Amino acid sequence: MAPRKLQIAAAGLGRMGHRHALNFLNRTPRAQLVAAFSPDPKEHEWAREHLEPYGVKLYSDYDEMLEQQGLDAVVIGTATSVHAEEAIKAMQKNLHVLCEKPLSTSVDVCRQVVEEAKKRPHLKVMCGFSRRFDDSYQNAYGKVADGQIGRPTILRSQTCDKHDPSGFFVEYAAWSGGVFVDMSVHDIDLTLWFFGNQIVPKSISAHGCIAVQPGLAQHKDVDNAVGIVEFWGGQIAYYYCTRMMAHGQEDVTEVIGTEGKLSVNLIPQNNLVRIYSDKGITQEVPAHYYGRFEMAFVKEANDFAAACLDDTPLPMPIENAVKAVQIGSWLQEALVTGKQIHFDQSGKRLERPNL
Amino acid sequence: MAPRKLQIAAAGLGRMGHRHALNFLNRTPRAQLVAAFSPDPKEHEWAREHLEPYGVKLYSDYDEMLEQQGLDAVVIGTATSVHAEEAIKAMQKNLHVLCEKPLSTSVDVCRQVVEEAKKRPHLKVMCGFSRRFDDSYQNAYGKVADGQIGRPTILRSQTCDKHDPSGFFVEYAAWSGGVFVDMSVHDIDLTLWFFGNQIVPKSISAHGCIAVQPGLAQHKDVDNAVGIVEFWGGQIAYYYCTRMMAHGQEDVTEVIGTEGKLSVNLIPQNNLVRIYSDKGITQEVPAHYYGRFEMAFVKEANDFAAACLDDTPLPMPIENAVKAVQIGSWLQEALVTGKQIHFDQSGKRLERPNL
Amino acid sequence: MAPRKLQIAAAGLGRMGHRHALNFLNRTPRAQLVAAFSPDPKEHEWAREHLEPYGVKLYSDYDEMLEQQGLDAVVIGTATSVHAEEAIKAMQKNLHVLCEKPLSTSVDVCRQVVEEAKKRPHLKVMCGFSRRFDDSYQNAYGKVADGQIGRPTILRSQTCDKHDPSGFFVEYAAWSGGVFVDMSVHDIDLTLWFFGNQIVPKSISAHGCIAVQPGLAQHKDVDNAVGIVEFWGGQIAYYYCTRMMAHGQEDVTEVIGTEGKLSVNLIPQNNLVRIYSDKGITQEVPAHYYGRFEMAFVKEANDFAAACLDDTPLPMPIENAVKAVQIGSWLQEALVTGKQIHFDQSGKRLERPNL
Amino acid sequence: MAPRKLQIAAAGLGRMGHRHALNFLNRTPRAQLVAAFSPDPKEHEWAREHLEPYGVKLYSDYDEMLEQQGLDAVVIGTATSVHAEEAIKAMQKNLHVLCEKPLSTSVDVCRQVVEEAKKRPHLKVMCGFSRRFDDSYQNAYGKVADGQIGRPTILRSQTCDKHDPSGFFVEYAAWSGGVFVDMSVHDIDLTLWFFGNQIVPKSISAHGCIAVQPGLAQHKDVDNAVGIVEFWGGQIAYYYCTRMMAHGQEDVTEVIGTEGKLSVNLIPQNNLVRIYSDKGITQEVPAHYYGRFEMAFVKEANDFAAACLDDTPLPMPIENAVKAVQIGSWLQEALVTGKQIHFDQSGKRLERPNL
Repeated sequence: MAPRKLQIAAAGLGRMGHRHALNFLNRTPRAQLVAAFSPDPKEHEWAREHLEPYGVKLYSDYDEMLEQQGLDAVVIGTATSVHAEEAIKAMQKNLHVLCEKPLSTSVDVCRQVVEEAKKRPHLKVMCGFSRRFDDSYQNAYGKVADGQIGRPTILRSQTCDKHDPSGFFVEYAAWSGGVFVDMSVHDIDLTLWFFGNQIVPKSISAHGCIAVQPGLAQHKDVDNAVGIVEFWGGQIAYYYCTRMMAHGQEDVTEVIGTEGKLSVNLIPQNNLVRIYSDKGITQEVPAHYYGRFEMAFVKEANDFAAACLDDTPLPMPIENAVKAVQIGSWLQEALVTGKQIHFDQSGKRLERPNL
Repeated sequence: MAPRKLQIAAAGLGRMGHRHALNFLNRTPRAQLVAAFSPDPKEHEWAREHLEPYGVKLYSDYDEMLEQQGLDAVVIGTATSVHAEEAIKAMQKNLHVLCEKPLSTSVDVCRQVVEEAKKRPHLKVMCGFSRRFDDSYQNAYGKVADGQIGRPTILRSQTCDKHDPSGFFVEYAAWSGGVFVDMSVHDIDLTLWFFGNQIVPKSISAHGCIAVQPGLAQHKDVDNAVGIVEFWGGQIAYYYCTRMMAHGQEDVTEVIGTEGKLSVNLIPQNNLVRIYSDKGITQEVPAHYYGRFEMAFVKEANDFAAACLDDTPLPMPIENAVKAVQIGSWLQEALVTGKQIHFDQSGKRLERPNL
Repeated sequence: MAPRKLQIAAAGLGRMGHRHALNFLNRTPRAQLVAAFSPDPKEHEWAREHLEPYGVKLYSDYDEMLEQQGLDAVVIGTATSVHAEEAIKAMQKNLHVLCEKPLSTSVDVCRQVVEEAKKRPHLKVMCGFSRRFDDSYQNAYGKVADGQIGRPTILRSQTCDKHDPSGFFVEYAAWSGGVFVDMSVHDIDLTLWFFGNQIVPKSISAHGCIAVQPGLAQHKDVDNAVGIVEFWGGQIAYYYCTRMMAHGQEDVTEVIGTEGKLSVNLIPQNNLVRIYSDKGITQEVPAHYYGRFEMAFVKEANDFAAACLDDTPLPMPIENAVKAVQIGSWLQEALVTGKQIHFDQSGKRLERPNL
Repeated sequence: MAPRKLQIAAAGLGRMGHRHALNFLNRTPRAQLVAAFSPDPKEHEWAREHLEPYGVKLYSDYDEMLEQQGLDAVVIGTATSVHAEEAIKAMQKNLHVLCEKPLSTSVDVCRQVVEEAKKRPHLKVMCGFSRRFDDSYQNAYGKVADGQIGRPTILRSQTCDKHDPSGFFVEYAAWSGGVFVDMSVHDIDLTLWFFGNQIVPKSISAHGCIAVQPGLAQHKDVDNAVGIVEFWGGQIAYYYCTRMMAHGQEDVTEVIGTEGKLSVNLIPQNNLVRIYSDKGITQEVPAHYYGRFEMAFVKEANDFAAACLDDTPLPMPIENAVKAVQIGSWLQEALVTGKQIHFDQSGKRLERPNL
């Protein structure tokens, strides 16, 4: 008899949601996509062609989908504003949850999800930080864990998007939580991974500027930002994020240890082709993060399915997802207020919030 | 109702065979692996764990497998010596065929397969040259087709394996057809692709030496070989193959045109990690061709399934598989005899065989 | 009759001093090294072999050397603590001055040199920031000036030295001015170059840690530091400096503009050799900054000679040397105090010094 | 008293000649350029401005220049057709000789120079193969000599020029000796260096085509050529040369040994700048060989001066210059005739010349 497959439902079929749905449908052998929800008629149209014929039942109501018999898990790829509520509802129906990052742009709301998850330790609840599932990052982490660079001390990481002149990101800034929460949260998550989840911030600084999207000012956001987080253990992480790149996605990480260094994706590349012309020798660059991380999302789906089916630990504790958003929020606060934020060794903030 | 999936059987579950089987089982959404054959009890053992539970029926007899009801296609990954026979039998049962390269190390036997295929134009018969399905090669081909390098004139291509000190390749040389047939056949296939299937050789030279595997001498083979093929249209391809690399797999191609150049995989890499140590800055290299071409094999399976289901053209004519082996054989002959081989403009050989 | 050569004297024959002397002796066709001063008998010994036979008169007294007939210029490569005094004395003798960076680790002392220089506008007085003379930086600057990246907005620059376990840098920290003054001053100078000498800091943050040289604590210095300088024009520069690199010198700069980006030395390399071994593919890295910038120092000597002989402008105003040290000092202060520093649009500091 | 400098005269002030003259004038501390000859009034005009003021006496007659008192050496950078005659005359005047490559395109004429040199073993006579003086090649050679790649077995080397649409190279082909003699001779010289001067060819093949310069046909030359030389010791060298590159100079060498591999200049670069634009990430490439090898020519001048003054061995025996031209001629013959050439173990050719 065939081994049981994880019966999973997809919530949200937009930009990322439909990718999660297709990954669970086609590229996750141990899972079976059995249901999908979207509030959007256009997304239903797409789903009727690409999901329904393969046995996926479609819903316009999330709660209704959760009632479907035999469900084991939900993958949540809806708008960030409903992530938390949907995740909590799913847990209350005793379902495993894979939620697109972030759980919420609000630290408090994130914490509610974590509280709910803690009540049900038998459930697998994961906030998907895709870089954790990327071959290159996993290889780098293995080398660090193996001691190849001594004690990791400095982490430089950046999330740099290709410039999108459509104005989308100005609107988006209204509710994105700001660039450090929206973009650098990936780099912060990497910091927790490479330095250890238990690290405690000691002080935080940040600066930013608006170079190409003047409209961001109304949302107190910027399109270029640099931040530094110093930790009590003697480590420092520093981040750069931008939405202004001419060439494409450039997500780079360097981890510098007392005895060596590792870099990941220092020179981004779309493939292994070089073009020789009178301009010189050129390598093309992925235009978007999915071009860089597609296979990491596939691995995430597979690892999540395996953890649910085999009851094995997830690669990252759900608390991390809160911690990453929390540090992102502090960076954003430091950026807006122009003041460093300080913490004692227990992680308690030393001054009153600057805002 | 769910769209019909290609019902496919896998012949051979060895080194490449089991990868084809798993790819069709898990990573080819439009295909369903329903049967598998192997003459080897150990491979059956593996299959009972990894295939049978998922509805794949196992056979120790190839002919018996072909009788299974509802089969549409066979993927052949057995030993080269039986490729042709199995392919012909499958066609005679009206099945589509995806056959690992080469059809045979004998040009005559290759031709029999092609003859058989020509009788059944409704069948999709493909000899899998995996590089045709590789993202980077496809990207490069698109640029050439787009005229970005002018008229492609020179092609340099190499197939270089990591040194295997086990002695396997000495034994293997007894029936591999020689390094040009076994290894460079990939580079020759790329030549047919980038220069056009219709190109006609004008002259061929080759040289080789034995550097690390003295036992090859008994099979008139070498472990390092360089060959040149000049074509009547004014193009030249030159090849290098070796089994002596210390660092891993290094399959490089350069296509030089009258107005530009492209390279593929000029500096092989295992991933996007760089390691900084007192030795310098290092990138690791895939140890084997599957590390380089894994996703190409997955794409091959998907494209083959689509061509069968949609009755669309395959990316390469089956005749190419003969032509590539033929050119490889001539290179091998030139290597062994130390004489150039010449052809007239129709492709007719000008001298009697040297051997 | 042969064109007149710049008659130059070298002060200091230590680590950098002897390189300046040899560059003016051998690799600066329009200059003639005619005198050299060192207080150190060992350096005299070296000079008797390498300088004296070629017509260079040696002195143990700096003032005495300045009296030598026919002198046009002095190149100062002594200890930082005497740079300013020697530069001023030379100007008072009506000599052009090329002074190793920095003029002084004290901003006030730097200013005295500048004051003295302003009194004698006919003299060429330059503080040698070698990167300004590096081919790659000059090429990058040309592209920026040419508008190829739009408006330069973000500058990331790092000065990273190979780890020196000898303890030298602990002692050195007593009088180096701190890592931002000693190391990042180069990156700050690049910032003034690429963003424009007139840019005004708006706010400054810095963080640092001690990872491998515990003795630095006694000098309130660190071995790893990250700092950010935000400018009123909407630009941001951020810096990393370390003395902990396992692999060698890694001085990298990236300039990100509204329409493109440039990087300089993103992957340092000793030469054009790649080594393929079972570890992967490796490029070696220069161990020290002179391995990276040797030819820049030669160009500096030649450009200085030309400016003196032809009375043409120097590539950088001497005021920059003060401004760079000033910004470095602020970064060091921000590092030590854990507080951001703010400035108004005229460059006036908004709070009282934190110290 | 100042150490004696090598008193050297420059013959020829054209493309390469004037560079040699300037290098000896300005960048060779142990040499003094004291005379220069050119038959060309335009070159005299240039010399009156750039050489004469610095004490260099100008001549329109080569023989007359050789009479100048105190001369030690001559650097010959005239047209290839007079290299040999001028070298022999210089030797007969007891002068050391540094001659641009090749001594001659005729093997017999080359041999006359060598005969003359052998009669005067106290003279330093060198044919300048500049790559021998390049940092990267020297570094690679050191690693090979050190055993880092085991026994060097395969050498791939190419000399690839940027396309010059002026028609110059068609005219030039009338007397250049053909592409293998003119271009690949550098790669052949590297082969002699890395495999050992004593290696004996076993067989030679070559193929070529005309892609962009149809006029070459009248001189039996081509603009793209590939050749293979197999040696009796079990090594193989293969070469590619072209004058068709869109991007610039691309002179690459790979040396593959039984235990590792080295590459030199695998990805050519003009400097350390990368340009990020919507095309991707680009590195510029030197347009000409002097952009790649400038510093090698400077080192050549310095090493030659040192060998003459100190009576130390030259880095390469003058016989090599003949051997390299000889192998180049055989490759050219194999190209034109379409036949392999074979040799016995003593190096004796086995068949009558094909021509």
